[in-house]
Amino acid sequence: MLILTYIAVIASAASGSLEARKNEMDIVGATTIALVTAFGGGTIRDLLLGRTPVFWVLDPGLTIAAFIVGALSYYRLERISNRLFTIVDAIGLGLFSILGATYTLQLELSPIVAVLMGVVTGVFGGVLRDLFCNRIPNIFRHNTELYATCSFVGTCLFVFLIWIDTDHFLASMISAGTIFILRLAAVRFRMTLPRP
Amino acid sequence: MLILTYIAVIASAASGSLEARKNEMDIVGATTIALVTAFGGGTIRDLLLGRTPVFWVLDPGLTIAAFIVGALSYYRLERISNRLFTIVDAIGLGLFSILGATYTLQLELSPIVAVLMGVVTGVFGGVLRDLFCNRIPNIFRHNTELYATCSFVGTCLFVFLIWIDTDHFLASMISAGTIFILRLAAVRFRMTLPRP
Amino acid sequence: MLILTYIAVIASAASGSLEARKNEMDIVGATTIALVTAFGGGTIRDLLLGRTPVFWVLDPGLTIAAFIVGALSYYRLERISNRLFTIVDAIGLGLFSILGATYTLQLELSPIVAVLMGVVTGVFGGVLRDLFCNRIPNIFRHNTELYATCSFVGTCLFVFLIWIDTDHFLASMISAGTIFILRLAAVRFRMTLPRP
Repeated sequence: MLILTYIAVIASAASGSLEARKNEMDIVGATTIALVTAFGGGTIRDLLLGRTPVFWVLDPGLTIAAFIVGALSYYRLERISNRLFTIVDAIGLGLFSILGATYTLQLELSPIVAVLMGVVTGVFGGVLRDLFCNRIPNIFRHNTELYATCSFVGTCLFVFLIWIDTDHFLASMISAGTIFILRLAAVRFRMTLPRP
Repeated sequence: MLILTYIAVIASAASGSLEARKNEMDIVGATTIALVTAFGGGTIRDLLLGRTPVFWVLDPGLTIAAFIVGALSYYRLERISNRLFTIVDAIGLGLFSILGATYTLQLELSPIVAVLMGVVTGVFGGVLRDLFCNRIPNIFRHNTELYATCSFVGTCLFVFLIWIDTDHFLASMISAGTIFILRLAAVRFRMTLPRP
Repeated sequence: MLILTYIAVIASAASGSLEARKNEMDIVGATTIALVTAFGGGTIRDLLLGRTPVFWVLDPGLTIAAFIVGALSYYRLERISNRLFTIVDAIGLGLFSILGATYTLQLELSPIVAVLMGVVTGVFGGVLRDLFCNRIPNIFRHNTELYATCSFVGTCLFVFLIWIDTDHFLASMISAGTIFILRLAAVRFRMTLPRP
């Protein structure tokens, strides 16, 4: 689990850093955007739930990892295979979503809030990254393949599994796996949401 | 009071959702912007004051209402009469402002902070909506009719009424009413603030 | 120390207000941006660390000062000498950074987090100001002279000095002074960070 979290954080940090480079930022911008992308979703979740100090403040190892990955990606990473990037990012989406829902249920808050916090944890890193890069968040636009929706479906499944008393680890793996597969399928088949 | 809160939340959610549609967002963007517009001001107030978990996390009914209204407005609402919209939005501005000031006074913080939190609660939903839509917040621009100013005047009145020991319900109604009427007058007579 | 804090807050508020005027905002926008620039960094630090209510909520004097300075700068300030502005801003950068690190160490959090919080406190007021003005934050761009970097170096020095048991006041003065001088040198010699 810890290894998977590090993978997710590293993937997000690299994505943020590359995005910063595209936007003509310097290394300060790149490492900041890397941290924002990696920790943004979980930070908003922790603030809304009142779990402070926020998670990465209590785990400097994660912060250092994201910082170093952000800096290396900025200077050294030529390009990254789109396919690899989508896979690693989908792992992160699944894990972060389930973690967000888990923490909310631990506070004995309602399942509806747990789903919402799962989605927030999963997607708001990317939303904040786009805000700092001064554009409308990517996942809010037409023509973007399902992203928040995958997180939503998987987190609903997770809350349901916990509600019927499934083992926590098993429920996490099933739900994160569902999000992962849904996201890959959405990219593969270019699935989008209906227009008004 | 609860009914009025729901009206205010519904009005904000609908406004956020329509704004999202104008900006070519999909349903994920529309419901997110709906929630941000409806809960943004109160959320910032709660975070600054340390009232966590924030209010809507503890009241899933509100969250569901905002979510459904956001989704319906996106797909079903053809257009909304400008006049009706201004009226409902002005009700929300009045209520949210007074609620923000009330919560601050309950924490025995200074009246100055109460006024500030009242204004923040009243207007920051719209400010965050505009940030997510990637533009300078509407209420900060020249040529916008008085908006934050109405909230400011009404909240000052409220704090004064409480200070001279007026009954809380009476003070709330007078102040929210003042904000409501000021806002309608500002729109009707196109009142703006002096340029430098 | 208190006098220096007021100087830093006043400088930030004036800078925010002038920026708002450049962006065609009205007085509501100007005072909001003034408050955001003056208190943004410390607010984010307090939220992340869980120090709520945030600092300026507990010190209405600071809030009033920033508000009045913001309003006066908007209507009355013709222009400000670039050199004076850079000097006052550099004082603020130094003080805010050291304050951020000090509060973090008081909570017995890791030195790495202390450095990060120092930088956040020092620079995020300006970052939020730029976000509200709808542009990519200035300090993230190529061709900007070292800014966050000065804060980073000085805060690292501060954490080191505290670690070897230097007197707190002495360590603060040395580190804030270092940040101040580094920043002036960066502007004077147009020092920037290497491109990828």
